[in-house]
Amino acid sequence: MILATAHICGVFNLILAAAMLIPMMADLFADNPDWQAFLSAALLVGLPSLLLVISTQKRMPPFSLRFGFLLVNAVWLSTSIVSAVPFVMSGQGLSFADAVFEATSGITTTGSTVLVGLDTLPPGILLWRSLIQWFGGLGIIAMGLLLLPFLRVGGMQVYKMESSIQSDSPYTRFAQFSAALVWLYLVLTIACALGYWVTGMTVFDAVNHAMTTVSTGGYSTHDASMGHFGAGTLVVGIIFMVAGALPFVAILKALVTGKVRDAWEFQIPVLLSILAVLTLVVTLAGLFETERESYDILVHAAFNIVSVVTTTGFASTDYTLWGPFVVSVMLAATFLGGAAGSTSGGFKTYRLIVLYQNLRLGLKELIYPNGVFIMRYGRAEMPPHAARSVSLYTAAFLATLLLAMMGLGATGLDPLTAFSGALTALTNVGPGVGEIIGPAGNFAPLDDMAKWILVAAMLLGRLEILTVLVLLTPAFWRI
Amino acid sequence: MILATAHICGVFNLILAAAMLIPMMADLFADNPDWQAFLSAALLVGLPSLLLVISTQKRMPPFSLRFGFLLVNAVWLSTSIVSAVPFVMSGQGLSFADAVFEATSGITTTGSTVLVGLDTLPPGILLWRSLIQWFGGLGIIAMGLLLLPFLRVGGMQVYKMESSIQSDSPYTRFAQFSAALVWLYLVLTIACALGYWVTGMTVFDAVNHAMTTVSTGGYSTHDASMGHFGAGTLVVGIIFMVAGALPFVAILKALVTGKVRDAWEFQIPVLLSILAVLTLVVTLAGLFETERESYDILVHAAFNIVSVVTTTGFASTDYTLWGPFVVSVMLAATFLGGAAGSTSGGFKTYRLIVLYQNLRLGLKELIYPNGVFIMRYGRAEMPPHAARSVSLYTAAFLATLLLAMMGLGATGLDPLTAFSGALTALTNVGPGVGEIIGPAGNFAPLDDMAKWILVAAMLLGRLEILTVLVLLTPAFWRI
Repeated sequence: MILATAHICGVFNLILAAAMLIPMMADLFADNPDWQAFLSAALLVGLPSLLLVISTQKRMPPFSLRFGFLLVNAVWLSTSIVSAVPFVMSGQGLSFADAVFEATSGITTTGSTVLVGLDTLPPGILLWRSLIQWFGGLGIIAMGLLLLPFLRVGGMQVYKMESSIQSDSPYTRFAQFSAALVWLYLVLTIACALGYWVTGMTVFDAVNHAMTTVSTGGYSTHDASMGHFGAGTLVVGIIFMVAGALPFVAILKALVTGKVRDAWEFQIPVLLSILAVLTLVVTLAGLFETERESYDILVHAAFNIVSVVTTTGFASTDYTLWGPFVVSVMLAATFLGGAAGSTSGGFKTYRLIVLYQNLRLGLKELIYPNGVFIMRYGRAEMPPHAARSVSLYTAAFLATLLLAMMGLGATGLDPLTAFSGALTALTNVGPGVGEIIGPAGNFAPLDDMAKWILVAAMLLGRLEILTVLVLLTPAFWRI
Repeated sequence: MILATAHICGVFNLILAAAMLIPMMADLFADNPDWQAFLSAALLVGLPSLLLVISTQKRMPPFSLRFGFLLVNAVWLSTSIVSAVPFVMSGQGLSFADAVFEATSGITTTGSTVLVGLDTLPPGILLWRSLIQWFGGLGIIAMGLLLLPFLRVGGMQVYKMESSIQSDSPYTRFAQFSAALVWLYLVLTIACALGYWVTGMTVFDAVNHAMTTVSTGGYSTHDASMGHFGAGTLVVGIIFMVAGALPFVAILKALVTGKVRDAWEFQIPVLLSILAVLTLVVTLAGLFETERESYDILVHAAFNIVSVVTTTGFASTDYTLWGPFVVSVMLAATFLGGAAGSTSGGFKTYRLIVLYQNLRLGLKELIYPNGVFIMRYGRAEMPPHAARSVSLYTAAFLATLLLAMMGLGATGLDPLTAFSGALTALTNVGPGVGEIIGPAGNFAPLDDMAKWILVAAMLLGRLEILTVLVLLTPAFWRI
């Protein structure tokens, strides 16, 4: 089991090592000496990974829950560390903590950054940041679709129920879906890049932003993030951030059958309604608080709400200047997250639905204690253990959030920065609020200790918390 | 049912009207013209209440859940409004919103205040503030002990199980326990007042603070709160705040049987451990961050942690000056709350235990999906519906917190003030963090709208949220 885990980690790291040659070529093309850093990193990662892959067994062990949990943790941890190698070796002089922070923020598609002066950085490092987010986005869809439902973490069984792909083993699912998934993801990315290019981006910017939009990652090639571009580009961004936050299997089904109706999942209308209502609220606040034109306010309100709720984390404008109400709304919106089975993180739409239905049912039961009520999820019946799993996740989420907040507070951060930093890392959104880590800020000024706490929170959030906590229980390691 | 509810509300308001004569006498004695305000208020409240009590039926309807929910809501709402009458009529020129805020903060034993210059206020109004907290504390023990377990709100059945008083109807319990309860509460208050007096308070201060300590309310007669007094007084305060946060039925049982062992409840060691650990953490932070002497730091750390966790809300020093870490700890401590069956509010110890056990069990089930595990609460087995009720409460708590935060943000408060204000009101603690509503601050500068939101949050928190939400469902009013 350990050998098989090492084998699979080796394969993923080999892919990353090969991917390092892409930024190498970009730097060679731009005549930037950083190409040597990427070549060295590729060799440094690639050769041991190759040895690992060759020396470990290729036969997969029978699928077991233990293997699943171990694999998921090992893959995300090792790819986070491996992705940090080019950052350490490049000419930007990043410390080890900074490099791991940037890499983890990329792989987990969080999008918080410690790099300043993005506009003047060599193309290679910018491309590497976008690439790891793109790979991270693909990884999370694959994990959410193929593995997490089997691990039954945090109520993902609801999603499994809804996506209605029945199969006995994750291996069959994997074979069946992975190719189609990669194609769909690739097509969406290309479409997004075209949209960006048509609305005024350079080819380089368009490719980079497309990779970080569809993956709901949020890394940009400019310090001003998407604020660098015009309203047309923002509208393209809104469309593809929403696409990245939708359940990919639903899109896939609709494409296969050719019927839009097949893309229906109960999460989708709920998510779109949340986005519409919050956009309306922020637009009204913007009309009230700023002197901007109403069209401009609507686009920026929609862009930033979509960016936060889908956990992308692009900023188009410093919305903290729109008054304290908008900041509170953005902070609350950081909790929500997109749909399960998408690239987005956070609490996720289906869990909101389960919590809401649980509350509705619970209130009914208080009035009719002997009544028997059926919990619904859309038109289907919800299994009672789903509600329990979601409650479990909620408790773990809150406990992790409070601990991370206190940890960040211990490094000297003010409570608002500590709270929003812990929250934005745990939900993989990207920017927090407050002067340091707000949408106009940067994570560079934080202590190394604070960065390590955030690295842990980003990984916990990306792996749905419980997947990591399971490894910390003695029961997991027994026998 | 409506008539019986009106009758009981009338009785409670009649008691409050009679209680208004106490501050009246204090002001008469101090030769302050405010005595007329209390007399008018007593008549204004007392006469209609008397008419109401006489004109409505005296026979209790058969106990039903509907009646229970309606009664609890009606009693707390009407006493909050009635307690505001003396504030409106007194010479302090409080607006209607301010008066209702101060009264609700009193009755719910929250302890947030809009009054400034407490040291120079006439004795009557100070005494009235203390009195309503004292009545509020008694009310919440009675409600938690006698009514909430029957309404099965938020997992109170666990507490019922633990308190092991078996009875078929709340009426028998009421008859059996109410007299003993009032005596115990009175004895604790007198002991606390003696302790305060011996350690240097005037008789007036001792009586007032004793009433707001045992009720874990937190109103003081000084702007500096308990910072006005010495270390000895703080130690007395710590003892009686903890007493107020312990399950009263356990104390009662131990007193009846004479065996300390009978006071054992699983909540107690957990609560005391939480207090000890947090005190240690804050003490270490204080040693690191301030120049004070270590004994002084320990006393103030213990006092403020106990004050926040027991949801009392006294401040002995502006701990926001102890560095951002202590502020984060205090903010996290605001979530916790004391034991069920006590005067304290917040999330409460038994819910923390249930959530923790639920999480432990849930992780085990992820590893052994076919295993059958028994959830424990102390040495007893926990019924599964208890975990469900607690999860329900948690979801309702979070939703209310986020909504209240956004509402407060809409009135123009910064996010930290909005968040901590919503939290401190919902948990009935008292002070928030930040410059306006921090331990050295005051709620007076807030908008009227913000005060109404906080009034709603205080009542929701005091009534365990779900008790209020039930009344908002159409199902409650059907038939």
